[in-house]
Amino acid sequence: MNSIPSNSAGIIEPQNFHFDKPLNLTSGRILPCFDLIVETYGELNAAKSNAILICHALSGDHHAAGYHSLEDKKAGWWDACIGPGKAIDTNLFYIVSLNNLGGCGGSTGPTSINPETGSHYGPNFPIVTVKDWVTSQVMLMEKLKIIKWAAVVGGSLGGMQVLQWSISFPKRLHSAICIAGAPKLSAQNIAFNEVARQSISSDPEFFGGHYLERNTSPKKGLTLARMVGHITYLSDSAMRSKFGKTVSKFEKKGDNFGRDLRSEELSFGFDADFQVESYLHYQGERFSENFDANTYLLMTKALDYFDPSIDYDSDLSQAFSESNCKFLLISFSTDWRFPPERSREIVNDLLKANKEVTYLEIEADQGHDAFLLPVPRYIEALRSYLNRIHTEVIKNAA
Amino acid sequence: MNSIPSNSAGIIEPQNFHFDKPLNLTSGRILPCFDLIVETYGELNAAKSNAILICHALSGDHHAAGYHSLEDKKAGWWDACIGPGKAIDTNLFYIVSLNNLGGCGGSTGPTSINPETGSHYGPNFPIVTVKDWVTSQVMLMEKLKIIKWAAVVGGSLGGMQVLQWSISFPKRLHSAICIAGAPKLSAQNIAFNEVARQSISSDPEFFGGHYLERNTSPKKGLTLARMVGHITYLSDSAMRSKFGKTVSKFEKKGDNFGRDLRSEELSFGFDADFQVESYLHYQGERFSENFDANTYLLMTKALDYFDPSIDYDSDLSQAFSESNCKFLLISFSTDWRFPPERSREIVNDLLKANKEVTYLEIEADQGHDAFLLPVPRYIEALRSYLNRIHTEVIKNAA
Repeated sequence: MNSIPSNSAGIIEPQNFHFDKPLNLTSGRILPCFDLIVETYGELNAAKSNAILICHALSGDHHAAGYHSLEDKKAGWWDACIGPGKAIDTNLFYIVSLNNLGGCGGSTGPTSINPETGSHYGPNFPIVTVKDWVTSQVMLMEKLKIIKWAAVVGGSLGGMQVLQWSISFPKRLHSAICIAGAPKLSAQNIAFNEVARQSISSDPEFFGGHYLERNTSPKKGLTLARMVGHITYLSDSAMRSKFGKTVSKFEKKGDNFGRDLRSEELSFGFDADFQVESYLHYQGERFSENFDANTYLLMTKALDYFDPSIDYDSDLSQAFSESNCKFLLISFSTDWRFPPERSREIVNDLLKANKEVTYLEIEADQGHDAFLLPVPRYIEALRSYLNRIHTEVIKNAA
Repeated sequence: MNSIPSNSAGIIEPQNFHFDKPLNLTSGRILPCFDLIVETYGELNAAKSNAILICHALSGDHHAAGYHSLEDKKAGWWDACIGPGKAIDTNLFYIVSLNNLGGCGGSTGPTSINPETGSHYGPNFPIVTVKDWVTSQVMLMEKLKIIKWAAVVGGSLGGMQVLQWSISFPKRLHSAICIAGAPKLSAQNIAFNEVARQSISSDPEFFGGHYLERNTSPKKGLTLARMVGHITYLSDSAMRSKFGKTVSKFEKKGDNFGRDLRSEELSFGFDADFQVESYLHYQGERFSENFDANTYLLMTKALDYFDPSIDYDSDLSQAFSESNCKFLLISFSTDWRFPPERSREIVNDLLKANKEVTYLEIEADQGHDAFLLPVPRYIEALRSYLNRIHTEVIKNAA
């Protein structure tokens, strides 16, 4: 890159925050101390009323927007939404994005050194829950001297953190924006996660999670896990158009159902024949080189365990009874991982709890992944909602 | 079992048929000779007009109905539909069910001895296509001295064979019954198959497919492959009810989304916490003990490659132009592997080709697996259609 695009959050330097106060985890275990790596975009106003917290999904991290250097080929994972003039506008808001506990982006997690043993946590890192993350995010909030978030925003697993915020710390946020979320995983969701975990743990390079000591990693297993995940992030129709563009001699007309071939002839062997196969391999392998397998396991367990209604007799509307923020929920028509129905369940329980809720179902072809993409109606709705939030929090502070 | 149920096809003895005539495969390779293992139920009438061919799906075999002995715990895979008085009525029809070439149920396949080398075919068994299967089924038909099937019937991959029959041998069948089928796989279908193949081939016990020589088998990989497959055979809602029956202390009310736990407390470890996880493990492991990995690979490739429109300028209605049978298509509302839309595509192309087609969309909760189950409206429709077929073929023969 010669220069940073004018609507980019710019060159961002991550900051590390160290926490000495022990963290009591849902599992009963205690983390005596930990670090969180954080990026911020935009400026905190004097009243500290314009701060937004971004919660990341399964494979996300703190690097949500902008670039780390001019050499970066890719911007942060939510650069489509965060930047000057973008939906989450850095000209209006001070945006805080962290890597969650247990992550592998720089916050304390399985790849960190356990101060008590002097070696990597590896598989001994405690299983953390969405609730634990929210607790650690409150500790970060206190370090930043922010009293109340203008908004807590996240998609997918990030959206689950948003819901938990509204339940655990009702006075600490003005609005909750939950995108492509679900009140809890269904059996099918859990089943896909278990396939991913099995792929990783049955890789002979996994060594019960102690692969770092052996200078190896279960790349094949992690590749497989990501391939399965990737399929569930895309819609059937998105895959049809993504891998069905070429008109080959086999496919002269119309929709070929995403059956583009890698070469003109079928191999009649077990190598990849179709473009979709090599694409998934490539994406999976690239992911396996940059992500930690123990973190992947841990994140999928956090997903499985999430159920904010558990402490409320399985009644989600009861869980929301003390919530004190307004809610925006957004879902996408072709998302079959967390389909619109799951967001509507949340909406219904919020209404039952008499909360102020706005719900938007976006027609989009891209499946679950749509939440990361610049789908126009989605982006405009998010922008317009946050503009109103900005007016409200500035007025409240004045 | 003390006795065989009165509506069972009874104790069945499989028969072996040897074929000396070389089979030219779609891949260009030639199988110099082969065996097919076959079961038959019911009696062939004098006019040989009441024969039905059953085509099996990915993991099926020749044992479609009845029992092999009184010690058998389970009947054949389609016993819900085949038997005296059942939808495919052995009192009316002579039913022929074979294990396809490349299978591991007794027909020539990767686990057979290659007469040219004296050792297992293993990974050197040629990739066979749906077209090859149909060709071998015609050879079987000739051995049985049957001129025309009253019906060729199959679900899923079996339904694809049905379609191919109507295209390749239009004069050899009176009716084609394609259940839960698709005109060809979409990119998403292929992607799931590729995940299954990768699971198998990256198992260290796979040895490039030469596991039999080493007295081992890639059980973990095959287990994983089956787990992924199994998820796609069930609907989300079927999984919700299957694994959401228990009202535990965590789930006191209503639908718990299939989140039944294995014990009262979460493990906060990586063992299976939810019933759905251990169910999938159990099913996958049981399957991996009874099925050959090379066969699994080969069957998934046959699925991927199936596209009867390829020789017709990608126009499926053209492919059907010479078809000379009547068609029944059946799909199931919650089947997301081959959803009703895919059957409707076939129906549309049949109508465009001016064929006689009956189409039935069945409301059923069980997903793709519904085709194997006694869903009342489905069973009754199949019975009524076949009763009519029986009248027609008897009349024609008279």
